Amino acid sequence: MKYDRVFNFSAGPSMMPLEVLEQAQKELLNYHGTGESVMEMSHRSAEFKEIIEQAEKDLRDLLNIPENYKVLFLQGGGTLQFSMIPINLLFNSKKADYILTGNWAKKAYQEACKFGDIRVAASSEESNYTYIPETSRSDFRSDADYVYVCYNNTIYGSHFNEIPDVGDLTLVADMSSCLLSEEIDVSRFGLIYAGAQKNIAPAGLTIVIVREDLIGHAPKDTPVYLDYETHAKKDSMYNTPPCFNIYMAGLVFRHLKKMGGISAMHAKNVAQAEKLYGALDALDFYNKPVRKKDRSLMNVVFTTPSKELDAKFVQEAKEHGMINVKGHRSVGGIRTSIFNAMPDEGVDTLVEFIRKFAEENA
Amino acid sequence: MKYDRVFNFSAGPSMMPLEVLEQAQKELLNYHGTGESVMEMSHRSAEFKEIIEQAEKDLRDLLNIPENYKVLFLQGGGTLQFSMIPINLLFNSKKADYILTGNWAKKAYQEACKFGDIRVAASSEESNYTYIPETSRSDFRSDADYVYVCYNNTIYGSHFNEIPDVGDLTLVADMSSCLLSEEIDVSRFGLIYAGAQKNIAPAGLTIVIVREDLIGHAPKDTPVYLDYETHAKKDSMYNTPPCFNIYMAGLVFRHLKKMGGISAMHAKNVAQAEKLYGALDALDFYNKPVRKKDRSLMNVVFTTPSKELDAKFVQEAKEHGMINVKGHRSVGGIRTSIFNAMPDEGVDTLVEFIRKFAEENA
Repeated sequence: MKYDRVFNFSAGPSMMPLEVLEQAQKELLNYHGTGESVMEMSHRSAEFKEIIEQAEKDLRDLLNIPENYKVLFLQGGGTLQFSMIPINLLFNSKKADYILTGNWAKKAYQEACKFGDIRVAASSEESNYTYIPETSRSDFRSDADYVYVCYNNTIYGSHFNEIPDVGDLTLVADMSSCLLSEEIDVSRFGLIYAGAQKNIAPAGLTIVIVREDLIGHAPKDTPVYLDYETHAKKDSMYNTPPCFNIYMAGLVFRHLKKMGGISAMHAKNVAQAEKLYGALDALDFYNKPVRKKDRSLMNVVFTTPSKELDAKFVQEAKEHGMINVKGHRSVGGIRTSIFNAMPDEGVDTLVEFIRKFAEENA
Repeated sequence: MKYDRVFNFSAGPSMMPLEVLEQAQKELLNYHGTGESVMEMSHRSAEFKEIIEQAEKDLRDLLNIPENYKVLFLQGGGTLQFSMIPINLLFNSKKADYILTGNWAKKAYQEACKFGDIRVAASSEESNYTYIPETSRSDFRSDADYVYVCYNNTIYGSHFNEIPDVGDLTLVADMSSCLLSEEIDVSRFGLIYAGAQKNIAPAGLTIVIVREDLIGHAPKDTPVYLDYETHAKKDSMYNTPPCFNIYMAGLVFRHLKKMGGISAMHAKNVAQAEKLYGALDALDFYNKPVRKKDRSLMNVVFTTPSKELDAKFVQEAKEHGMINVKGHRSVGGIRTSIFNAMPDEGVDTLVEFIRKFAEENA
């Protein structure tokens, strides 16, 4: 691969499009003739204003974000959203229902319990999260302020194959590991958020897409940074934003548009995932724990027959230029994340290795 | 200047050392033969662990940080610290005393009022913050949980020329715009913090240096990200940190060590500030509002005889390759920030321009 780069199957931070990195490198010392790096640019300058506005516009185009939604560029990662969501959204009954489909949903649930009457509406914890539980409208409290889901489960390799029906309740989704990988109907959600470090930009940026009527209800003593209104009123410029990360996100958005937008990216992701799951399904050597219809397009999780062979797989993959394929410590085994920026060549190399490894170690 | 770069006198984000930017550019697509960019690197990888540990070690060396202090790499900027400080530190009397020396101190004070019994111990607001008020031990409540100062006032161009005597009370300092510019005795403070975007790294990183006995007292329902203990227990890796920003900070720390450490940097800053204030003091044309002994080494604030001439100064400076010299909207006039990375050539160019402008417009 160009520049001796490796195929990085990390669950995040993970690969960025090569073209985007090359552009960032090119303009790192002098952005568009301004004589400065984006890293050095005043966030109040006309140049940065253009960067952040263009990034927002491109994201809106890519996801068809309705006009009554705000796009916020924040810091603090998903962890801060675990708190901000209940603090801002529990403004009527102070009740919320969570669907537990993995560690991140559970952490979000545990954090929310500090702020209201939080209930587990459904969970697949008993099976170590190998599937997405079916739910219907009646599983949720009719007066819940919101229903919370983690739409793609990075650790377990599962994904909601359809948007849960919550009736007229507000649906909130952590899309950290799938935003921009597939078309979504934003209007079905009250709030969507994503840490940038999977499909968007370097770590240190969180994107929040939130319906306007959900903003402005935080309690009076809310820490100012944790009130969505603080940021919404000032177009994410209440305080100095993570400028360089936003710039990188903007480059990625533009790159996606050039590649044909989200539908083209989704087609590429489906093709890669089918190739990879196809190879695994053809080999009894590998165990694929996730229920087929709930499989993630982004994180492909499997195990070999033993922990020793798992470790050998990880080691040999690395020797073949494929890094970070080790499963999360709570699951073990192998996890190969194939985010938007993974080239076909990476998946082909992995598939070939998967076959060869099974043959040699069966 | 190399690469057609400009002299950027922005109050932050601002200039970074050219050598650091060049190194970042060089390894942007393949960091030290790993085959990946730091932006793509798993934060749990051995490579990133080395980056963050080395950055912390170098910062500890530079500032002689005692062993009983934690160094935290956080997100959310000074704004999040405005909340985190009272939430974490008001654990006995729930009283704190603030010295108001500018907008940022006042914002911190207003935010703290949400969380306890907060009092203004001294203020120079009546003079639009043109000096640092003198205080003595008796100005502070004897049972205050802490005393808060903003050590360098970016907007007004003032700076504490000595550490206020708070006796055995805990002193907390916002050093966003002076950390690493001068030697400080960390042991005199309970907590020091700085947004990175002045002397340290691109925006999106906040460094907190906090004495260990002040950690672990946040109320139970504190949002998990806002509890210092969350981060201290996990060496700033509770959640995905802003990896690239930390890497850039690390490059700056190493660069500072190479340049002779903080004492050498301070000598350079003093020499540049003397040159600049000297030129201004020699010309009655300019008004220098800040009391001499309280002048900042980092932010040099002055005005011309009229708003029209201020605007002309800003415009002509830009035409001469010196950008972002406009004063903050709450003060007007001119503000030239000369952080660590400002080369002598930039100050020389500015001094020459200051003289010429006065001559031409007197």
